[in-house]
Order: sequence, then structure tokens, then C-alpha cells
Amino acid sequence: MRIALDAMGGDNAPYEIVWGGAEAAAQTADSIILVGDEAAIRKAFRHRHPKIRPTPDVEALLREGRLSIVHTDESVAMEDAPAAAVRRKKNCSINVCMRLVKEGKADAAVSAGNSGAMAASALFILGRVKGVARPAIATVLPTAEPDRPLLLLDAGANTDCHHEWLREFAVMGDIYSRLVLGREKPVVGLMSIGTEDSKGNELTKHAFPLLRDYTPGIAFKGNVEGHDVFEGKTDVIVCDGFVGNVILKTSESAAHAMGGWLKRVIMGNLFFKLAALPLLPALRTLKHQMDPEIYGGAPLLGVSGAVIITHGSSTHKAIAYACAAGSRAAEHNVSREIEACVAALPEVPLDEELAQQAEAPVPRLVAPEPEKR
Amino acid sequence: MRIALDAMGGDNAPYEIVWGGAEAAAQTADSIILVGDEAAIRKAFRHRHPKIRPTPDVEALLREGRLSIVHTDESVAMEDAPAAAVRRKKNCSINVCMRLVKEGKADAAVSAGNSGAMAASALFILGRVKGVARPAIATVLPTAEPDRPLLLLDAGANTDCHHEWLREFAVMGDIYSRLVLGREKPVVGLMSIGTEDSKGNELTKHAFPLLRDYTPGIAFKGNVEGHDVFEGKTDVIVCDGFVGNVILKTSESAAHAMGGWLKRVIMGNLFFKLAALPLLPALRTLKHQMDPEIYGGAPLLGVSGAVIITHGSSTHKAIAYACAAGSRAAEHNVSREIEACVAALPEVPLDEELAQQAEAPVPRLVAPEPEKR
Repeated sequence: MRIALDAMGGDNAPYEIVWGGAEAAAQTADSIILVGDEAAIRKAFRHRHPKIRPTPDVEALLREGRLSIVHTDESVAMEDAPAAAVRRKKNCSINVCMRLVKEGKADAAVSAGNSGAMAASALFILGRVKGVARPAIATVLPTAEPDRPLLLLDAGANTDCHHEWLREFAVMGDIYSRLVLGREKPVVGLMSIGTEDSKGNELTKHAFPLLRDYTPGIAFKGNVEGHDVFEGKTDVIVCDGFVGNVILKTSESAAHAMGGWLKRVIMGNLFFKLAALPLLPALRTLKHQMDPEIYGGAPLLGVSGAVIITHGSSTHKAIAYACAAGSRAAEHNVSREIEACVAALPEVPLDEELAQQAEAPVPRLVAPEPEKR
Repeated sequence: MRIALDAMGGDNAPYEIVWGGAEAAAQTADSIILVGDEAAIRKAFRHRHPKIRPTPDVEALLREGRLSIVHTDESVAMEDAPAAAVRRKKNCSINVCMRLVKEGKADAAVSAGNSGAMAASALFILGRVKGVARPAIATVLPTAEPDRPLLLLDAGANTDCHHEWLREFAVMGDIYSRLVLGREKPVVGLMSIGTEDSKGNELTKHAFPLLRDYTPGIAFKGNVEGHDVFEGKTDVIVCDGFVGNVILKTSESAAHAMGGWLKRVIMGNLFFKLAALPLLPALRTLKHQMDPEIYGGAPLLGVSGAVIITHGSSTHKAIAYACAAGSRAAEHNVSREIEACVAALPEVPLDEELAQQAEAPVPRLVAPEPEKR
């Protein structure tokens, strides 16, 4: 597979990006197309990466065409208004990546840049998969079960969602979990505020019967709640992009705070500091297990092509894994599979009928309904 | 202050509850009214609590009236439909607590029972504060800053919210943070998916100008995101009850998963196991700092009376802290302060005007608007 890698996107661009690309080219059968300022890319390769062993032979890879450079001197900054930037800067590295995919010169696009710009560029250039109302960003999170990451979508592309979109998210998530993350029969949950069928808000109450009765082929386990996110018993969780984004950032915040507390308690005391030394390898193992980088970044599902968005702070390792995820997504033709599955979905009942099905028993937390304002 | 404590609510009732009540009575100036099955309460007191030192002299407290028992043999179970249960079981312990407050025989009500039943009972018996559209459950979370907990509301009482309710949540949260948690000038944030003014969903985009321009008296810092939850730089965060509940449960899940990972890594290796022993006191300190129990549970704000809901798994310690929080809420008359502040709020502009103010610059993550379905 040929991966178009945005060399200019992300906090650590181009250094970590291009070396991550070189690592991917050296260690897999994929060839990597580095898109960006050629001079900057070549300069970055002049300082070998201390953490990649053995150091890839960049010159040889370039000679063999396993690594190549497509030059462009425009790029999108993190603070640019995403949609405007990709429209104005026609030849920004993200747009060039997408065009390579569109023209069949690459099989997947990978970037650690502005995720809004990625999504906008993918929509402009690649377009939506036929039948999909809204593409979604899916994020992969580690869970308490090693090797059973969670796919959470939408993680921020669509802040206000129609319940039908959640059904498409479920189908797309199921496909990605199967084909790229390798779960045989992914368990799909609907994010809500209690596991009982009737719990939730207007959106989830409408989405629930749709997922249960009108989405054949997925293993729908019903409502899940925040407690289920890291438990490792659900493979795909669907929610609107507002809730997904809040979940993602809150858990990063919680993990960070816990690490900080632990550090403060230990570093505040010389005895603890010394006692902690022998445990450093254990903490490193823990850090590795919790590392979302090894799961290959966040696919943008529902656009016509394999597109992977990685964290702005991605290191070479995250980039190499993201290239592998892009390669797998392209190899298994995730977009085509999404088109086929969405086309096969049964027709949705009228909103009123669905509301009736959803409404059956709806106990509310706060019982008597104060007058509407 | 006199606290009506629901002796029958929670996973550890009545044992942990009644001993927590005795602890509060012994260590503070408050008197505690235990509401529940008298035989069960007396039986629980027969086994002294190993973790409370010194053991409170229950007989003396009862004799002096610092501790008293109001008998009732009905109670609400966790699996009961909340609203129906408090309507059907007129004399369930939760209802009796609320009636004691209503009749002026107690100053605050505290329960570790079914939170939906608590909210329903408070609404039936105490009613809403004049001018408040919807009461909210506010949760106190520890943050990276010691002694600067975060008040998050609504944590689950109202799943779908009108933007005007969020303004009331902000006012109520500000008051509780000042009067009970002791923050001088609480910093209030609106939960969104980015800190820029224009980021968010329909609800937050409408709530934003309301909080900025139509809520005098609060220190509104603008939008916050998941990353801010545990940072300790915001004192009150407002959101709808769906999002609040998801935040609460997701962070519990994240903390639990991290603890589990750490344990597994250390326990999986004899050397690490031995090396970890000297660090146990540090881990205990950490556990204490992260312990939400010490912040006194979740107030139900916007009902006419001081009502504190604590976690179902509350121990004696959580109960004692909750009684103290109820006492402070009653002492500072949080409900009356809420009524005064809500009455002083300026009138809200028409939804259309507000929409215009909200709409000014609305960049979307996914740029081109696919056709509406």
C-alpha cells in the first residue's frame, strides 16, 4: 500500500513525522509518500532519530521508491480556521495528500495536523461515501483489557446529531473494528446515562430502537454509560460528537491528573523517591499499555478513501502505527464496505413511530415535569 | 443545625450510615435525626465501627438528643422506579426526611439512596425555589489542586436542557461554591468542545452569550473543555445532565482503570511487588487526596431546602462529611440566596436575538454542510 503522509502537520513536524514515515517504510511492505516542503524534509533526515533502532537507511529507501517526497510549500497551521484554510491554500500539504488518494496515486492519507482541516479537506476532495449522511471521527482508546481497545465515535466532527446518523456511526464503527482492529464480532454500545433501555436523552431514546431493531448485522448490547468506557467489554461506542469529544478530553484529563498526583506524592518525600526507583520499569510498562499511540490514530469514517488523523503531539511511533492503520483500512477497503453495509440498512420508520417505540417506559430522574418554558 | 439522615439508603445501609451519623453528632455541633427502621438502627449500633476513633458514645448522644431516631418501616430500593416509589410509599425514609425539613423539624436532608427518588421526593414535598425552572444535581470532584474541588452541574437530573436552565445552574453553582465550598470568587466555565467562544453545540452556543452578558455577578471564564475538568483552574462547570453524568462516570472509569493497570503491572512480578511495599503510605495519601467523599456529596440545588445526595457506596466518612455539607448549606441558607439571585437576573432576550449573538462566527469542525436529512 502507498500512504500519503502529511509531513508538515502536528506539533513535532516535520522531524517526528518524516522519521515515523521512514520507520514505517523500513519495517513494513508499505511505501510512504512524504508530502511537504522538500528542503525541510531533507533537513530533518540529516539528524538521525535516536529512538528508532535500527536507523532506517533513508537514502536507500528513497532510491528504491519505498520512500518518496512530493513537494509543496503551503501548510495549514493549528490556529487557522479549518474550512477556510483548506479552501484558500489549494496546495497545502493536507489537500495534496487527499488529491493523491483521489487520483489513485496513494491508497491512504495520514496527518497529525489540524483535525478540522483534515475533515474539511477530505470532504472537499474525496467526498462522502454514498449513503452516509455525516462522516465521523472515530477514536481508539485503551481499556482495562489489554489488546481490546475501544472505538469511540463520533469524537468531534458533528456536535448536534440526528438519531439516524448514530445508526451509521454504529455500522461504520463495527466495520472498522472488524477489519482494522481485528475484533471478530465487535460489541456495540450506545452512550447513555444508565444501562436500562429507557435511560437517556431525546437523541439516545430515538437512536435506541433504531440500533436494536433496524441495524441488522451488528452486535448491539444496548445502552452503556461512562463506567463502561475503560472496562474493555464494549468494542464500539456511539454518541454525538459533542459527548464523544468531552469523553475523550475528560479521560485524558483524569489520567493526567492521576499521574500528576502520584508524582507529587512520591517526589515530595525523599524516602518515597528512592523507594520508587525500582518500580520505574513497571511504570514504563504501564505507560506503554495505556498508550493510545499504538492503536494507530483516529480514522475519519464515511469519506471515500482511507483517512487517518493522529494526535497533534504524535511521535514517530504514533506515525508509524497510523501508517499501518491507514494501510489496513485501504487494504480491506473500509470505505467500500461502509457503502455496501449502509446501502443494505432497512428503511427507518417515521420519527413519530420511532418516538412511540422509544417512549414506552421513560422514567425520569426528576419526576414531575415542571411547566415548559 | 439538625440533619435528617436517611438511615436506609445506600449500599451500606444502615450500618455505615448510622455510624456516620453518630460520628457527625459526636464531632460537630449538629444534631442528627436518623430516619428508618428503629430496630435495624439499634441493631447496627450494637457492633461498634472499627474505623471510627474514638467510638462515639451512642447511648449518651441519644440521651442528650444530639442523636435521635424517627421510625419508619418503608424504604426505596435502588431498583425501584424513583418517582413511582416515592409516590406509592408515602412513608419511605426519604419522604420522611423531606417532611421533617418541610415542617421545620430538620434543617437539611441527607441520603445515600436512589438519587432519582431523592430528587423526586424533594420536588414533591419541598418544591422548587421560586424562579428556578429545574433543580440540578451538583457533584463535587477532586482536581489537581488540593483544596480546590470542582462543582459540576447538572450531573444527571435534566438530560435535555434549555439554555436558560444553564444560566440558572451557573448561578446556583456559584452560590454553593461560595457559601459551602468556601471559594471566594468562583470561576465558572461552560462545558464545550474547545475554549474558543464559538465552539460547541446548539445548546452551548445559545448559553454562551447568556452567561457572558446576562448573568451579572458570576466570574464567567467562557468555554472550557474536558481537559479542564481536573486541572483545578475552574470552580464551577455547567452542562446539561446528560453530559455531566457522562463526565462523572467516565472519570470514575478512567481512574479505576488506571488503578487496575498499575496494580496488574506491579502484582504480576514478585520483584515489583516487594519494591512497591514501601510506597504503600504514598498510595494511601494519593487515595485520600483523590477521595471525593471528603467534599460532602452532591447537593440538589434549586429545591426549597438543603438536600444532599451522597454516593450509593458511601462509608461512614462520606456520611459525616455530607452531614457537614448539609449543615453549611442550611446555615448559609443556600436556597434563599438562590431565590434572591435568580430573581435579580436580567430578562433573557428572545431566542432569535440570542441566536444571532451566538451565531456570529461559527466555524464547524466538518466544514461543508451536507444536505439536511
